[in-house]
Amino acid sequence: MSESTILHRRNFLAGTAAGAVSVASSARAQSPAAEAPKPDPGKPGAKGLPAPLAWKDPNAFIVHSNQTVETKRGHTGSGVITPIGRLFIRNNVNPPPDGIVADRDAWRVEIAGVASPRTLTLAELKRIGLASVATVLQCSGNGRKYMQDALQPGQRISGTPWTVGAAGCVIWSGVPLKAVVDALGGPAGGARFVTGTGGEDLPAGLKPKDVIVERSVPISTLDTVLLAWEMNGEPLPLAHGGPLRMIVPGYSGVNNIKYVKTVALTEAETDAKIQAASYRMHGVGAKADPAQPSIWEQPVRSWITAPLEGGPAGRTVVTGVAFGGMNAVARVEVSTDGGRSWTDAPFVGPDLGRYAWRQFALALDLPAGTHVLVSRATDAAGHVQPEDTPPNGGGYSYNGWRGPAVTVETA
Amino acid sequence: MSESTILHRRNFLAGTAAGAVSVASSARAQSPAAEAPKPDPGKPGAKGLPAPLAWKDPNAFIVHSNQTVETKRGHTGSGVITPIGRLFIRNNVNPPPDGIVADRDAWRVEIAGVASPRTLTLAELKRIGLASVATVLQCSGNGRKYMQDALQPGQRISGTPWTVGAAGCVIWSGVPLKAVVDALGGPAGGARFVTGTGGEDLPAGLKPKDVIVERSVPISTLDTVLLAWEMNGEPLPLAHGGPLRMIVPGYSGVNNIKYVKTVALTEAETDAKIQAASYRMHGVGAKADPAQPSIWEQPVRSWITAPLEGGPAGRTVVTGVAFGGMNAVARVEVSTDGGRSWTDAPFVGPDLGRYAWRQFALALDLPAGTHVLVSRATDAAGHVQPEDTPPNGGGYSYNGWRGPAVTVETA
Repeated sequence: MSESTILHRRNFLAGTAAGAVSVASSARAQSPAAEAPKPDPGKPGAKGLPAPLAWKDPNAFIVHSNQTVETKRGHTGSGVITPIGRLFIRNNVNPPPDGIVADRDAWRVEIAGVASPRTLTLAELKRIGLASVATVLQCSGNGRKYMQDALQPGQRISGTPWTVGAAGCVIWSGVPLKAVVDALGGPAGGARFVTGTGGEDLPAGLKPKDVIVERSVPISTLDTVLLAWEMNGEPLPLAHGGPLRMIVPGYSGVNNIKYVKTVALTEAETDAKIQAASYRMHGVGAKADPAQPSIWEQPVRSWITAPLEGGPAGRTVVTGVAFGGMNAVARVEVSTDGGRSWTDAPFVGPDLGRYAWRQFALALDLPAGTHVLVSRATDAAGHVQPEDTPPNGGGYSYNGWRGPAVTVETA
Repeated sequence: MSESTILHRRNFLAGTAAGAVSVASSARAQSPAAEAPKPDPGKPGAKGLPAPLAWKDPNAFIVHSNQTVETKRGHTGSGVITPIGRLFIRNNVNPPPDGIVADRDAWRVEIAGVASPRTLTLAELKRIGLASVATVLQCSGNGRKYMQDALQPGQRISGTPWTVGAAGCVIWSGVPLKAVVDALGGPAGGARFVTGTGGEDLPAGLKPKDVIVERSVPISTLDTVLLAWEMNGEPLPLAHGGPLRMIVPGYSGVNNIKYVKTVALTEAETDAKIQAASYRMHGVGAKADPAQPSIWEQPVRSWITAPLEGGPAGRTVVTGVAFGGMNAVARVEVSTDGGRSWTDAPFVGPDLGRYAWRQFALALDLPAGTHVLVSRATDAAGHVQPEDTPPNGGGYSYNGWRGPAVTVETA
């Protein structure tokens, strides 16, 4: 029996000797299992959830508003892919009526900026090709709370105070945009952006350009964009952009256009407010303008998902998720002393590709006392997650390792 | 514009010109989306499903009996992982009452055949380690119907006539058995098998050994067996073996013990009937005995999932799933002429590892007429899926490519 085996065994037995109650409490923190009696996203009467989301797991969310629903920390599951019933919701405009998913194959999307522009039905898209990609779907403002908490007196960042729950890992299935463009004769030429337009009904009395959900991303994404009709093997729910969503792997949530009704290869970025005067990287208190970087590619990030509560001293499994945004995540380290010392944590589970997140799980022995648990990821390009993310006016793209620290007491 | 692009474009446009109705019909065959308005496995009042399974998708199943429920072909989704609400059900004995999932962390499993035998709670298992693995969960009799259909006069194979729907691809999360064994001092010595015992309530009036669900697998699986409490990121449902199931990657369904209550490293195989006198490889009409090969490792296999109905001539996307059982799947070929000629089909979507299945999608142009679509997989060890599988008395391990052929008419 190896030294480490002896150590693990002794501490494991010591840990379990500390009392069933504490152990159960610790174990609950490590898995949503005990809180969710059934894998039942369709369960009616979800407490606190807006009516259109009543089919989701009532125990899994923090409801900020009808259009901003955050997954509770530790509720994304341990299976790499986030169950649809636990995935966060963020909408800029109210979704269209659910009649649009009554006959999914009849949904129409206009493809412009190609040699032979056409409006295609979803049924026609399905005859062009099929691909699947796993991506981290994350609101551009995920982690904003940590940025807000670190502001100087007099500074203010508005927006939903997301912690880590405006993110999940999803497998999307649909047709590669490149295959659709090729089937229509290829790009018309001069295209520098892929511009997607959402099918939301625009509120009356407002300038369409001020409310329309229309985003432009660099033409370089043409090789990876997917027009998706399935999410985790299920028909894409209206709440997540069904019947058809434009998925831009590696890009933050707002760029993944729901109920997409137009996809155009364009020479310029759209002048819609959500692109021109919002989701820009600028200083706190400054105004957004088109010259500033747009919120596109996601930075490297990680956080711990368990334990989130105290428990007995002894053997503990520290778990979390890590991703690299545009690059595969290459390494993740865990600290139990708030970042003074670090230990590499092994990734567990299947590797779903560069745009997905990976789970990590480090079994270690926590002596009795207070422990500050943090994780730090490094992507394949060498980008290391910083201790803190300098504040920006919109509270976007937070990726510090300090913010999501977890303090637990063991006895 | 390349020749192939021109060809694809011409045929694509020609195909779509053939009529929206046919296109829609073809598209429906290619995705269950149109039939399942919502990703709603919790939808009540599932038609035809046994009451305990009423939370599953009512449109996704063929109900053979209360304990044998098959996923309709083409309803496993295109996202690699099979949604729980669409996954088949096969039980040898009625499941225990659902009270056993009321407090999951209190479930107890006895670990025997180790230096320090112990009964551990699920809460304690969660403090030992975490791992995830994607595997094809498949009933040993999946495809039996094709074997039954090919029998000679006078021959008979009893058992559920599964076609391709007693299979799915699942991500399991739990603790590696090896980590549990190490924490308890390692194997006691002399172990040649891993023997798992299910927690079913045994029917009164029968010899326990005749009905107990207890299976032994070779000790070589000790490095890969998982004691799983999550399935696709959800707490493992009772219907699929929750709160705890013993997963043996690459092995057929019966070896993956539900509600596992004992895991023992043993010198001999169990003498339970389900191991000694059932699930054995023997001739049609012969009796099972322990000297015959047990139904353990799954062979290489594939089948087409779309199209399953006719449609317009022109561009069509032929999709399916392929897996290698114990080995990764290395190649899959598609034939549209019943196996006279073959074309390599590209895999699509993330590779979830050697025990998972992979999706394939081949875009091709089907002229007007009758087409017999089949697929043929080859695993990483060079095993090629045979045209037919010689019949065996139990109707197990069918993996021929001929049986699941799909005939479609295009016009």
